[in-house]
Order: sequence, then C-alpha cells, then structure tokens
Amino acid sequence: MSSGSSDVVHAQRARFAEPLALSSGARLRDYELVYETYGTLNADRSNAVLVCHALNASHHVAGRAADAPDNLGWWDNMIGPGKPVDTDRFFVIGVNNPGSCFGSTGPMSINPDTGRAYGPDFPVVTVEDWVRAQARLADRLGIERFAAVMGGSLGGMQALAWTYLYPDRIGHCVAVATTPKLTAQNIAFNEVARRAIITDPEFHDGRFYDHGVVPARGLQVARMIGHITYLSDDAMAEKFGRVLRDHDGNGLRSAYGFTFDVEFEIESYLRHQGEKFSRYFDANTYLLITRALDYFDPARDHGGNLAAAFADARARFMIASFTTDWRFTPERSREIVQALLANRIGVTYCEIDAPHGHDAFLLDNPQYHAAMRSYFRRIDREVHA
Amino acid sequence: MSSGSSDVVHAQRARFAEPLALSSGARLRDYELVYETYGTLNADRSNAVLVCHALNASHHVAGRAADAPDNLGWWDNMIGPGKPVDTDRFFVIGVNNPGSCFGSTGPMSINPDTGRAYGPDFPVVTVEDWVRAQARLADRLGIERFAAVMGGSLGGMQALAWTYLYPDRIGHCVAVATTPKLTAQNIAFNEVARRAIITDPEFHDGRFYDHGVVPARGLQVARMIGHITYLSDDAMAEKFGRVLRDHDGNGLRSAYGFTFDVEFEIESYLRHQGEKFSRYFDANTYLLITRALDYFDPARDHGGNLAAAFADARARFMIASFTTDWRFTPERSREIVQALLANRIGVTYCEIDAPHGHDAFLLDNPQYHAAMRSYFRRIDREVHA
Repeated sequence: MSSGSSDVVHAQRARFAEPLALSSGARLRDYELVYETYGTLNADRSNAVLVCHALNASHHVAGRAADAPDNLGWWDNMIGPGKPVDTDRFFVIGVNNPGSCFGSTGPMSINPDTGRAYGPDFPVVTVEDWVRAQARLADRLGIERFAAVMGGSLGGMQALAWTYLYPDRIGHCVAVATTPKLTAQNIAFNEVARRAIITDPEFHDGRFYDHGVVPARGLQVARMIGHITYLSDDAMAEKFGRVLRDHDGNGLRSAYGFTFDVEFEIESYLRHQGEKFSRYFDANTYLLITRALDYFDPARDHGGNLAAAFADARARFMIASFTTDWRFTPERSREIVQALLANRIGVTYCEIDAPHGHDAFLLDNPQYHAAMRSYFRRIDREVHA
Repeated sequence: MSSGSSDVVHAQRARFAEPLALSSGARLRDYELVYETYGTLNADRSNAVLVCHALNASHHVAGRAADAPDNLGWWDNMIGPGKPVDTDRFFVIGVNNPGSCFGSTGPMSINPDTGRAYGPDFPVVTVEDWVRAQARLADRLGIERFAAVMGGSLGGMQALAWTYLYPDRIGHCVAVATTPKLTAQNIAFNEVARRAIITDPEFHDGRFYDHGVVPARGLQVARMIGHITYLSDDAMAEKFGRVLRDHDGNGLRSAYGFTFDVEFEIESYLRHQGEKFSRYFDANTYLLITRALDYFDPARDHGGNLAAAFADARARFMIASFTTDWRFTPERSREIVQALLANRIGVTYCEIDAPHGHDAFLLDNPQYHAAMRSYFRRIDREVHA
C-alpha cells in the first residue's frame, strides 16, 4: 500500500427541489449542496464514507482542487490512496453544509422568496439539519448505508448525530476531537466572536452585501479568538514564545518598541490569520455555524441523559481525543464513551498524546493516523467480507 | 479582633512637578497621582503597606468612597479594621497608577505640551515605571520603607518589581495570582482585545475624545474576552451552564429561540459586563495596561534567568496562587518560588484550592484569607517588635 500523490478533484453540485424542514420549524426550499467524491463506489454500494466538515472547512476534503491545484483538501493527510482512509478501498464523499459560504446554499445565495441574497434571513440551522441534508445527498447518490461517517470537532458532532437520526444508515461513527455539548466557556468564546461581527458597523444587520462591504474587522477579531482556542498554550509557547517581531528583516529584535503595533510574533501571526480569514469567510455563515455549535446537545431531549440519546444507535464508534485540546478536552470525549458503554455499544477510544491542542485532529500525528488506519482496515474487512 | 464596618475614605491627590523618566526613554512631566490611605502611620513610619492595583481597578482599595457610599473598595474583604490586612495595625496606601482612567494622570488628562488630552500620545508605561512613580509618592508621604507591598495579578507584578528596583525599601512582597511573564497565549488574548478596540471606527486613532464618542463596541468585546480568562471553565459551568435566558420573566425557558440574540445566560452575563465596562473605562488606558502586562518580564535583562533578576532582592516573599487559575496558573507562581529559592530568599508559598479561576484573588476564600491574615500577623510582630 503506497502513499499516492493527491489526485485532482472536481466539485459537483446536487439541487434539491423539495424543501428541507429544519429544527427551528422553518424550511429551506430549493437548495443546492456542493460535494466531492474520491475513490470508487463498489458494486453493492457498501464502501461509502461520508466526511463532515467543521467551522472553517468545506466539501474539499482531499486531493487538489481542479480549478486551484495548490488547494489541497483540508484532510488530505488522512484521506487518499494509501492513506489512513484509503480511497483505493473506500468511496469517500465530502459535502459542504447548507449555511456555509463555500458553495452550498447559504446566506450569500439568492433567496427565492425575495430575489435577493438571504443574508440574515437565512434560517438558523442545526447539526441535525445538516445531517438530514446529507442523508438526502446519500439518497441521490444511491447510498443506503454508509460504511462510516467521520468528522473532527463540529464534524464529529455530525457523525454522532447520524447514529441517532439514521441508526440503520451508518456502520461506524468516527468522531474526533469533539464533545457531546459545548460548555459555558465554549459558548462564551462563540458569543464574543459573534458580538465582534454583529457590532461591526459594516455588518449592517447582516445586509452588508447590499452595501458592497464586509465586516472585516469583526471577522478578524472572531478568527483571532478562534485561533487562540484551537492551539494549546504549550504549542503557542513553543511556536511563538515571547519572540519579538523583526520588522526590518535584520534578524531578531531584542528591544521593545513601546508601541501598540505588532511587537511579538504571536501578534503578527494572529493578525495575519484574521486578515486572511476576513477576505474569504462570510460573516453570516460565521454566526450560523457558531450557533449550530452552541445548540448541539443530544442529551437535551432526554432530560440531560446522554446515554438515552444513543439508546437506538446501532453503529459502532471510534472516538479520539487529544491530551492538550482545551477546547474540547479528552474528558468530553470520555463522556461520549461512557454514554455508549451504558448502552453496551461497541466503542474504540483513543486518547492521543499530542502537543498541538484542538488543531491536532487536522495534523499528521503518527499515533493518531496509525489508530485511524487500523480502524478503517477493520471497516474495510467488514465491507469486503 | 472584630470585623469592623467599612470606613468612609476620601481620595487624595499628589502632584509631581519633576518629570518621570520612563522605561521607553520618554518622560512624563507634571503628573498627579490619586491615592487613599487607611489606618494610621505609626511614629517610626514602619507600618506602611502599599497595595498595587490590576487592570480594572484603582486607588479605591478599601472602605466606602466619600462621594459614593455604595462604592466599596475592590479589596475591601482583605483590607480594613480586623481584616487580614488589619488597618488597626497597618497604614495602608492604595494608589492609582499613571496611565489609568481613575484619576491619576492618564490619556484623558491634558498634555501640557499641547493643551489637549494626551489620548494616543500618552507614553507607553511599564510595571517598573509605575513602581518608580509609587516610590515618589512614598517619598512624599515620608515612607522610607514599606512593611509590605502587595497586589494580585498585575498588582503582584508591581510588588515583585519593588523587590529588585528598591530592595531596601520593601520588607515583604505579597504577590498573589501573578506570573513572572505572560505566555504567548496571554499576549494573544491581550492582542485580540486591543484589535477590537483599535479597529472600532469610533476609536479614531485614540483621539475619540475630540469626536465626542467612545469605542464602546471594541471595549465591550475586550471586556468579554477578559472575563472569559478571569473565570475558570468549571466556575462558568457552575454559574451558568447551558441555562437559557428567560426573556419574559416567566421562569426558565426550555426551547431554543433560533436566534443570534441572547439565548444562553452566559451570553447575557458577558454582554452586560461588556456594556457596563464600556461606560466607565477608557480605551487608551486599556491599551496601555495590557501592554504593560505584555512587557513585564524581569528575567529579560538577565538572559532569561529569573533567579538572576531577584539576586539583589532583600525582601521576604509571600506567593499565592489558585488551582483553577488558567490565566496565571500555579505553575507560573512556582517559577517565582524556584527563582527565590535559588537565591536562598525566604518565601512562603500557598497554592489555594479554589474553583473560581483567576478572579479568586478578589474573593473571600477562607483558606486564602487565613493564610494572608497569618502572614500579616507575622509582619505586624516584626513591625511592633
């Protein structure tokens, strides 16, 4: 099994004329989903794997985008020929969720009821709404049952939701660096990011498209806050420490500049990340996706009993967490494992010693990738048995 | 020893005509400091205790403000008659630092060079600059040597700086919930807060006074970020959890509203804190004080060797930290203790098991207050020996 180079992939579109009933009671009519596929669906359609994306990601999971060959998929180190999720064996689908800004119907799309961009009128969507939209795409592709549904962070929540919404349509749930619900602190970080966006005068109550502007300042601050929570304290110390930014290119600066301009490397990094993000990410989407995170809480309809939420699940589970992830700590993954064990559901749990914090789920950690490779080999054996 | 009611206190002012040379090379000319005193200076002037304030605090440390009787000092549970720092025994001074917005010369003051408010022209100040200004106030009050200098968080940094700037003028350094330097993550949080302020269009490059506005949106976001770092994850979970905000006063709401308005109690709390803060705190001061935090790093002039920074210190130390403080963790306090021990300096270290996070240093924790009471009794015995 050799590690192949990354293939060129073409995004595809599927239009759904029948409205999607949402958790809020609203409906989304006449919507499109953008998706990519990798590998080949086998004859009995049993080798399909669905990959769910997190806050700042899209359907472009693996390979090189046909229209931008430098654009490698966000999980390209995990998914591809000879990789842990081996596309020589599996047919993998990456799908962009409704409400996103990467091609599926979202706030920037035209609202058929008004003929103008949805903007703030795009309905609030939940993790469960996304899963229902994904199930329709599966119907369209003729996939009755996924060998596995997988994702990290918010993507992991979608994989979990598949097991209680469509227990017969998912063989394995692979949920990495996720949580059964956000803590007050998690919600607090989301709320600060949203306030930064909403109070930006260029947000215009979400109708900034009409004004030819974007709330770039709010998006920058939102992204900077996000980045702090994605990295561990130690990883930030290791990567940046208290090193001063060299403005002149003459090597390390040793004296303070006594300024509110960039002084430390960490400031430069965060500003750069924030500015880059504000150029491509939609502010209304940011609000929608952080709210979907806040709302996710499968135990909520069961009096807070997480085990009860998974009572009907028939999938088997692979749960993975990272020791230095302080956004969704290993403790939160262990709560999921406990809830599954209470139902006598088969679960593999990996707590991976990695220094990188929440971001670790995207990185090429040998222990992590070995565990994933091993788990998907098991799935492969079942599929091809 | 009975716990007396809190006395009414009057703020006092001291003007300094001689310029203060700052770490940056700039000078601050013709400045005023506002301060309060509690208790009585004894005949040999040996019972004086200086209290240094943190980011969002002032000279009003204890008692009731004469002009606002509901305004209790920020450390009133610690300092007063019969309290751990007993003002029946000690003469306590609270002083507002230059650059602040609570009465001492700061960005809102008139710059004598221009006849208008300093605004962004107020010089960048450091912890050491503040300590030098405090030493001048001590001169003015005829205090050659403090029995103790104390503070929490940023205030603790000032207490530490006294020991290497004025080793003969401080008997005991009492530094609570502090750190020998900020981590990259600490700086990152400060930087996000500063960006929120600086990119607020109503900041006007720091000249918002001239425009009759304040960058309230930026200050709100800055304060919300700060609050998240002051509370522990557990304290936030305990206090707010995922409880939904009751908008109608009809008891707990149980259904999501599918809105970006306030939905969870934690959102309501943070917004309220942010709005309140933006009505009284000066944006330029916020920048100055967060930068003073970033810059504090006594080991920096000693090749990163913290022990060398304290080589000339003659004070004895009381260092206290709180188990759930993730802003300045106990580990950071232990670094200070190690550096002191390397110099064979006498140090008492208390690691207090408290659930409240960084804010614990302001709260009435019995174990914490007992430790402080005990330490100040020891100082009292020395003073009155």
